[in-house]
Parts: sequence; C-alpha cells; structure tokens
Amino acid sequence: MKKIYFTPGPSQLYFTVEEHLKKALKNDIPSISHRGKVFEEIFKNTTDNLRSLLQIPKDYHIFFTSSATEIWERIGQNLIERESFHFVNGAFSEKFKSIVTNLNKIAREQVVPEGQVVDVEKVLIPETSELISITLNETSTGACHQMSDIAKIRAAFPNQILSLDVVSIAPCVEIDFTLVDTAYFSVQKCFGLPAGLGVWIVNDRCMEKSHQLLDKSLSIGSYHSLPEFLIKAKKNQTPATPNVLNMYLLEKVTGDMLLKGIDQIRIETNYKHALIQHTINQSPILEHFVQNTVNRSKTTAVANCNIESNLLIKALSEKGLIIGSGYGNYKNSQIRIANFPTHSKEQIEMLSDQILSLNI
Amino acid sequence: MKKIYFTPGPSQLYFTVEEHLKKALKNDIPSISHRGKVFEEIFKNTTDNLRSLLQIPKDYHIFFTSSATEIWERIGQNLIERESFHFVNGAFSEKFKSIVTNLNKIAREQVVPEGQVVDVEKVLIPETSELISITLNETSTGACHQMSDIAKIRAAFPNQILSLDVVSIAPCVEIDFTLVDTAYFSVQKCFGLPAGLGVWIVNDRCMEKSHQLLDKSLSIGSYHSLPEFLIKAKKNQTPATPNVLNMYLLEKVTGDMLLKGIDQIRIETNYKHALIQHTINQSPILEHFVQNTVNRSKTTAVANCNIESNLLIKALSEKGLIIGSGYGNYKNSQIRIANFPTHSKEQIEMLSDQILSLNI
Repeated sequence: MKKIYFTPGPSQLYFTVEEHLKKALKNDIPSISHRGKVFEEIFKNTTDNLRSLLQIPKDYHIFFTSSATEIWERIGQNLIERESFHFVNGAFSEKFKSIVTNLNKIAREQVVPEGQVVDVEKVLIPETSELISITLNETSTGACHQMSDIAKIRAAFPNQILSLDVVSIAPCVEIDFTLVDTAYFSVQKCFGLPAGLGVWIVNDRCMEKSHQLLDKSLSIGSYHSLPEFLIKAKKNQTPATPNVLNMYLLEKVTGDMLLKGIDQIRIETNYKHALIQHTINQSPILEHFVQNTVNRSKTTAVANCNIESNLLIKALSEKGLIIGSGYGNYKNSQIRIANFPTHSKEQIEMLSDQILSLNI
Repeated sequence: MKKIYFTPGPSQLYFTVEEHLKKALKNDIPSISHRGKVFEEIFKNTTDNLRSLLQIPKDYHIFFTSSATEIWERIGQNLIERESFHFVNGAFSEKFKSIVTNLNKIAREQVVPEGQVVDVEKVLIPETSELISITLNETSTGACHQMSDIAKIRAAFPNQILSLDVVSIAPCVEIDFTLVDTAYFSVQKCFGLPAGLGVWIVNDRCMEKSHQLLDKSLSIGSYHSLPEFLIKAKKNQTPATPNVLNMYLLEKVTGDMLLKGIDQIRIETNYKHALIQHTINQSPILEHFVQNTVNRSKTTAVANCNIESNLLIKALSEKGLIIGSGYGNYKNSQIRIANFPTHSKEQIEMLSDQILSLNI
C-alpha cells in the first residue's frame, strides 16, 4: 500500500517530483558543475519562477541556503548588530530567538501561549530593536497571522528590518513581500521537495545593513554572508557547491505550479482547509487548538485529541494515511494535518472520511 | 549518448545511486520525519558504515553538515579562539584560511606555489597556533600530502588541534585518523553522490575546545555547534532537518563500498592512477603539473596542456567523456581528471585511449 504523507514537513513530495528526478538523472544534473552554464540556467529559472509565483518585487534578491534554520543564523549574523525583537508563539519562533542569543546578541521577545498569535495592537516593541521577527505560520501550533497584522507592524515600525518566516505557508496564501525586508522558507513543506534547501528573500535595506556591520569590522559570517551571496547571484551562481539537484527540482516544481496557476492553488487550499475545519468540527474526538478562527492556519491544522493522539495516528496509518503528531509537549495530545499543494482535494476528502468513520 | 563525468566534483554518480534513488522514492524516504525511527536507523547505519570503511576510531564523533565549506566555518567558530595556522597550496586551502579571517580570527599561513605541498621539515608554525590545518588533497592543483607528512606534524605539535581536509581523497587512500583531531569531506567527490552533504569527524579534544570557548562566553555558532551536534547524534539525530535523501544514499553507497571491500577500491584506485599517469607521460600535449611524483594525487590528476585546454576538453566531450578544466587562473591551460571509485578501469582505459589517439 502506497502511503500518503499529511505530515507538516517533510511531507508528501509534490506529485511531479518523481518524474523530474528521473529526468534529472537522465540529464546528469547531479554531475554538472555549479560554475557552468547549465547550472546558471537552473539558478535563473528558479529565481524567475519564484518571483512570478510569490510576486516577489523585482528589487528583492533571492538566495539559496541549506535550510530555513541556516537562514535564522545568517539573519542573526548579517542583520542584527546588537538587538532584535521576536514574536514568540511556539517552538519555531522560539528557536529563531535562541539562535540570535547563541550569537551573543540580545533577542527580546513577546511570548504568547501556544495556539495564539501576538496581538499587534498591544505588543510593546522597543525602538532600539534593529529587527522585528514574525512567524507568519507557526508550524508547531497551527497559529497563523493575518497579513493585516504584518501591515500594522510595518506602519508602526517603518525603520526596523521586518523579518517574516513564511515556512510551511508560502505559496499557499497571498503574501505582500513589499511589507517586509526579508522573508524565507524551506522547500520540504508546501513545495513538496526533499529537505536540504532554504530560500532567502532580502531587499537592499538588508544588503546595506550587512555592509554597515562589515564596515564596523564585525563578522557577518563567511561564505554565506549577504555580500557573498549577492556577488555570486549576479552571475546566477552560489558561493559554495549547493544542493544542485534540489534547485533543479525547485525550478521544475515552481514551473508546474505556475502552469497550474497560483490562484487555482490558493482556491484549492481554501477548499481543502474548509474541509479539514469541518472534519475537526464534526469529529467527537477532535477540537481546534487555535481558538481564534481567523488565526487558524490554512496549511497546518492542529487539533487537540480527547484520546491519546497516537491511537488516531496509528489507525490512519494502517489505512496508509500518515498525519503528524503534536509538537514537543503536545506530542501525545494533538495531531497536525498538512494541507499543501501536493495534497489533492480527493486525498483530503479521503482523510476526512476516514477520520470521521473511525471507531476508536 | 550517455556522458561519463571525470570532473573532480561534482562528478559521476556512484554507479548504484540511481537504483538506490528509486528505492528511496518507493519507501518515501524524502517524506519521513527526521525525528522518527526510520531516520535514526539511517543515521546509525551511515555512521557505522563510515566508521568501518574509513577506519574511524570508536571514540571519534561523526556529524553531518550541508557541505565541507560549512565545516570550514564551523571549525572556525568551534575550534579557534584567536589563531590558526594553514598550509596553503591552492584555492581550497586558501578558502578555509579566508573563512577563519572572515570570523575575525587570526589565520596565519605557509604558502607554497600551486602544484607543490608545504615542506613539513621546513615549515615554521607558531606555538600560539591553536589549530593547524592541512589539506591532504588540494583539488584545485592535484598536489597531495603523504600520510607521513601528517605524522611528522602530529609528532612536532602534539598539543595543537590538527585538522585534515580529506575532500576528494577519502576513502581512496588509507588515512590514519588517530593522527588528527578533526577531518571532513563532502559527498559529491569520491562517494559519488549529489552535492548537499558534508561529513565532519571530530574527537573529544575538539568537543572540549568548543566547550572552553563557550565557557568564555564566546559564540560558537548556534544549531550546528559541536555541543548541539553531539546532543542530537547521541540519539542518532541532527540538530535541524538535514538532507535526509542524501544521508540515505550515503548509507547505501558506503554499504556497497563495504561489500566491494576497501582494499579492492584502493587497488583499483592505484591501477587507474598509474594508467592516468602513463597517459600524461605519453601524451605529446600534456605534462604533469605536480613535479614531485610522490605528491601526485591518486584521485585528482592535473596536467598542463601545451594547447588551449578547452580544445582537448571539447574533443573528449564530443565522445561523451567529460573532464575538468584547470581551476582559477589555470582554467585555459590545464585539465583535471577525477579517478573516483565510481570510475571503472574500463572507463579510465577508454579515456586514456581517447586522449592518446586524438588529433588536435
């Protein structure tokens, strides 16, 4: 029985990946030089596709790292001299904060209980914060900000670098990148690729900040500093040998998504989200973890179970449907269901039917 | 016409990789959680296989990064407080040095002309050096140290951390890891895998050094610091979502190499190396770049061309044989030929025949 992974990352591969992998092998993609023309074409097509798909402004740069976790560290090195401010509402927003602390910089925070988002009307952000970090979709809890929250923070703090974590949400909802200075994601979530690649979007304010730090003789890292990224990106190259195969797959999958149309992907995301919401509403063993409906993630549904969640996970697994457990302390009491572009309406319907018909 | 890549990395995939990739897809390896049992098994088997294949001592730890370049930076963060010393004889040994400088630490060096190795009898290394870096096989020039050089430096500097770059040479020659404190390589060279994974070997002296830096409130990076690696490795896990697919492939390829036998791999390496040496000797258009025979790399042959090297590269490419150009300033005047475990005797013989029969 072929399994279907509804785990919130790594997740099910995008349904075209297997074919692209075959073609990659046929065309020797893993053997090509990352300083040659074939690679430069892959780099250019990937960034062009991402720009179209996500509507990333022309003057924003797109760089490639090995993960979103790496980008947290690179932001800490390149964009923070002394002090940052973090909206913390779960394990991933917390991890970014702790990475900044590891770099011996001050990371202040506003913590709210898991399942909630920081109230942008009430949050007190010191003017001394050089960078404000918001996690659009907290994958550990399924709590998701609305873009209007980001707009309000942008309006209130025009001079700070605004950093937006769009892991496990881009490209499934519309994101106004002009509101932020930097954003990033990894490819093993909504893009349905193997893990091992992060995408980092930065504007020129970020470039300037990294140069300011450098001018003060502060270290901004080495091969993956912003200036090094830009020098190479101008030639459609990367500072070090990258995960070429994954970049090729990202080129192909973003191409497929553009052919399908981003509007269609988002319409389907909304439909499948409604179905998952309905399923949680109807299930006698599930209830929504995120109380505020507008903050319920469209891509990462999280529900409390009134039985041990592993019983539900196991019962579904026996039918080939793999869903995620709760994160951290919620491992045994919650489930997480990914609603990514690769998950078809029929697959989500099947999952829903199974959840509602199980006798546990 | 299917091409054969004799480029010194990325190179030809190990001949079993395509089959392993198919099985990885069948078994949903790209979708599994890196916190689950299946991944932990992959981690354990991969480190066990590497330990057997390379004869890595039991008390050395094995960690996984995204590249060897990343390991340069991690060494700079974790193992150097103030000052390191580098044997520099080409682009890659030079890059490591410059990364340490980027981290605002002092990187001293002994530079020798490209095509040579530093003379271990004459080099003057300050006692204040906390770490001594030697590149066993300089991929840009094909100059390779003998293990006796490493033994002499170890004997003369018992208290320094000795760091050995074994990129593009492990597992093709015998390396005595007990002589060094840390060593590292990337998988897209001799292991014949797609790029995107680095392997970092460290002993407890390295672990202690990173803790000393931490105790002095110095930053040693964040998620990929040595203490973080060790905490997770004890559970057969990684600090962040790794390149799971490549780790799976490394598990399988090292398994294949163990079945073949490391002695057989090294015997074949020697045979193919002799054949390439003979070819360069016989060719009217080629001459060895590395003058000292004992320092000629067994895995990375580099030759000067008395014609524009691109003419030779192009002529061979038309026959499906892809060899490397010279590195950096030598791009148009040299060729580089990889002799990795995936390259069969027959393939090297075919390459040799073609080089010697070309009319250019």
